[in-house]
Amino acid sequence: MKISLKKIILASKSIDRSELFKRAGISFEIFATNIDEEKYKRTFPDGIELVKELAKAKVVFAKNKLINNKENAIIVAADTIVELDGEIIGKAHSEEEAFEILKKMMGRTHRLITGIAVTEIKNPKIVLDSDTTFVEFLELTDEEIREYIKSNEWKGRAGAYSIRDKASLFIKKINGSSSNVIGLSMHKLYLILRKEFQINLFS
Amino acid sequence: MKISLKKIILASKSIDRSELFKRAGISFEIFATNIDEEKYKRTFPDGIELVKELAKAKVVFAKNKLINNKENAIIVAADTIVELDGEIIGKAHSEEEAFEILKKMMGRTHRLITGIAVTEIKNPKIVLDSDTTFVEFLELTDEEIREYIKSNEWKGRAGAYSIRDKASLFIKKINGSSSNVIGLSMHKLYLILRKEFQINLFS
Repeated sequence: MKISLKKIILASKSIDRSELFKRAGISFEIFATNIDEEKYKRTFPDGIELVKELAKAKVVFAKNKLINNKENAIIVAADTIVELDGEIIGKAHSEEEAFEILKKMMGRTHRLITGIAVTEIKNPKIVLDSDTTFVEFLELTDEEIREYIKSNEWKGRAGAYSIRDKASLFIKKINGSSSNVIGLSMHKLYLILRKEFQINLFS
Repeated sequence: MKISLKKIILASKSIDRSELFKRAGISFEIFATNIDEEKYKRTFPDGIELVKELAKAKVVFAKNKLINNKENAIIVAADTIVELDGEIIGKAHSEEEAFEILKKMMGRTHRLITGIAVTEIKNPKIVLDSDTTFVEFLELTDEEIREYIKSNEWKGRAGAYSIRDKASLFIKKINGSSSNVIGLSMHKLYLILRKEFQINLFS
């Protein structure tokens, strides 16, 4: 078992992903990226391709900014979308849009897809992967959806909900990784780091 | 839609259940109970019956202590076990026991069962329910399990792991409610309160 735990950079502004890392006991630093997501959406109509390409764009952005750093570091990024009836659902930009998104998802099962990209500052290798979790909602009334929206959990989240918070009350079941629904499939990250970068998060 | 949100008492010392309630935006008070769990284990060999009876014992304990309160309140309790190969697995009492439990569960799927009991101080009705989630672990080495145990997450938790914390790195997938794995199926609580106690957590 190799021990040398390299520095890990999380190229994401998501507080959900930060919390996943903290709770998993990973020491990391945050590097915020700035990607034109709309451009990618037009180029990659397939959900899995899209989130992988967006995650890749984020690690490449961070790498380009950090390439002259003396110290090497692992860079991790992710991107999440929801897919329902073949339609890609991203983040809502208003309460009304959040309502429309959630109303469509009530009483049904959607796919929550997260793309993961991992690289190192001083290593040309970029590993891409994705994970899909099926999420089934209870059927809420319009009034209940409007009450939920007041929690503001919809803000900045694909599919306009947060599984760990008030949305736990209407999430009937999931099938797949639960950390994936929060924003990054943690067992996939563990496997990628172990296999492709010789880093074991349990040592 | 009825509005009157009654006071809710969580008859549980579990910090995981407290966090579920807080994150769901439920205002509540904690009432610690004291039940001889070993006695119940001997009486109810079936996992689902056991967790329901234990949850019931907790709400009844709290109700008996609070019966002379002026104010009415909802009382909620839960109990969680893990089942693998028909064997009921509770909490570990030592690092060595945690290791034995986790080793057995690695690379396999276990059932995480939580019983829920809900009553009111001034209402004879006691509603019992349970929820089962299937949880699949990656295969960790003995060294990795021993590293995980150092996180101390095993303490006080059925099955010796905590899905939201470092164990997220080895949980490959779940099938069922994710809040159930944390300690209480929140959508079931929402449904019970709405149907049986005319309380809507979204109003």
